[in-house]
Amino acid sequence: MSTKSAIILLSGGLDSATTLAIAKNQGYDCYAMTFQYGQRHACEIQAARRIATAFNVLEHKFITIDLAAFGGSALTDPALAVPADRTDISSEIPITYVPARNTVFLSYALAWAEVLGLWDIFIGVNALDYSGYPDCRPAFIAAFEKMANLATARAVQGQGTYRIRTPIIEMTKAQIIRRGVELGVDYALTHSCYDPDPAGRACGRCDACRLRLKGFEQAGLRDPVKYVNNQ
Amino acid sequence: MSTKSAIILLSGGLDSATTLAIAKNQGYDCYAMTFQYGQRHACEIQAARRIATAFNVLEHKFITIDLAAFGGSALTDPALAVPADRTDISSEIPITYVPARNTVFLSYALAWAEVLGLWDIFIGVNALDYSGYPDCRPAFIAAFEKMANLATARAVQGQGTYRIRTPIIEMTKAQIIRRGVELGVDYALTHSCYDPDPAGRACGRCDACRLRLKGFEQAGLRDPVKYVNNQ
Repeated sequence: MSTKSAIILLSGGLDSATTLAIAKNQGYDCYAMTFQYGQRHACEIQAARRIATAFNVLEHKFITIDLAAFGGSALTDPALAVPADRTDISSEIPITYVPARNTVFLSYALAWAEVLGLWDIFIGVNALDYSGYPDCRPAFIAAFEKMANLATARAVQGQGTYRIRTPIIEMTKAQIIRRGVELGVDYALTHSCYDPDPAGRACGRCDACRLRLKGFEQAGLRDPVKYVNNQ
Repeated sequence: MSTKSAIILLSGGLDSATTLAIAKNQGYDCYAMTFQYGQRHACEIQAARRIATAFNVLEHKFITIDLAAFGGSALTDPALAVPADRTDISSEIPITYVPARNTVFLSYALAWAEVLGLWDIFIGVNALDYSGYPDCRPAFIAAFEKMANLATARAVQGQGTYRIRTPIIEMTKAQIIRRGVELGVDYALTHSCYDPDPAGRACGRCDACRLRLKGFEQAGLRDPVKYVNNQ
């Protein structure tokens, strides 16, 4: 592949939309990959579609994975309630943690990268806001990258080196939002809430909403998405 | 989990059946995980079911993954022919290589291990017979194991260490067969062929059949599965 191309893991949330904008700004032709895994916030899937269209991705692949069968997370297991109004979001691994989620996601992206013949995979993980998620930390990303270069035919044959790109890993939510606005991200297209109402409006109370609202507040901007209580 | 338990990746082939037998012999209570990924040799799925039943696994999980969408392999892409009668099987990465297959498989197993609360994952990779597959080598397994212990909540919290167990990685096919026979594996239940006929009989000509037949020959035993030409 002669042009500079990359796969972007696109959830439909604020972080991955910004990551896509950064990849485009760095000159990459972008392929988007979105996972449907029985999560309750299926609004994210529609958001991912809107964002991919807005940024003219070359191809948008939707992968259905059955993480729900594994249970163990409030995002995938209907028997567990999504926590609301937690006072200290970053103090421990939250119940919304999905076992090995980013490992599974990056593994699919790696397979697609090998088929497409490209070397760069962007993922919008963030080690500050989600410090409770082990698979959002730089140490995990570095270990995955090393494994990827031992796992795949093209890398082992010396044709190149896979890189897992994490441009927002050390940014605060406010920094992410400011950078996205600079790059033309329309955050009205995104969806972050873990527990939206039937109309798709954000709850304003789950961890994702609270982090997002705090980020917009600290960035001195108003969040353009709709909230249940018109925040 | 107080008892010694493990997940076994069970394809339905000779190697994974033997790996299950070894895990049982080492005292593990076994959970089996089988992937359906659009491969042509769906007979393997039925074989996996027979083997899991024969070894009394605690639970057998079937995961459907859409690797076929990725193309790039004769095992998943109907446009590519399965090679037959190759003279030097181990000289290069074969067209039957599936991009990042073991990475994806082990990632699912890791997610399930986290939910089940166990630490051992067995995979029947073999570095001798499949030297052309990068994700069958000890270096890959070690890198995956390291990554797994950085990826997951329970490991990061210090509750234990994930281990990817590869008991047959350095064994010849003949050694694998002899060990399996000692442990009571009925190889008539297994299926290895990449290109079976509609009745499920093995072709005898693909890489998998050739390795298997050579293994039985070197072990001084007769392969009990049915072949098209009654080998």
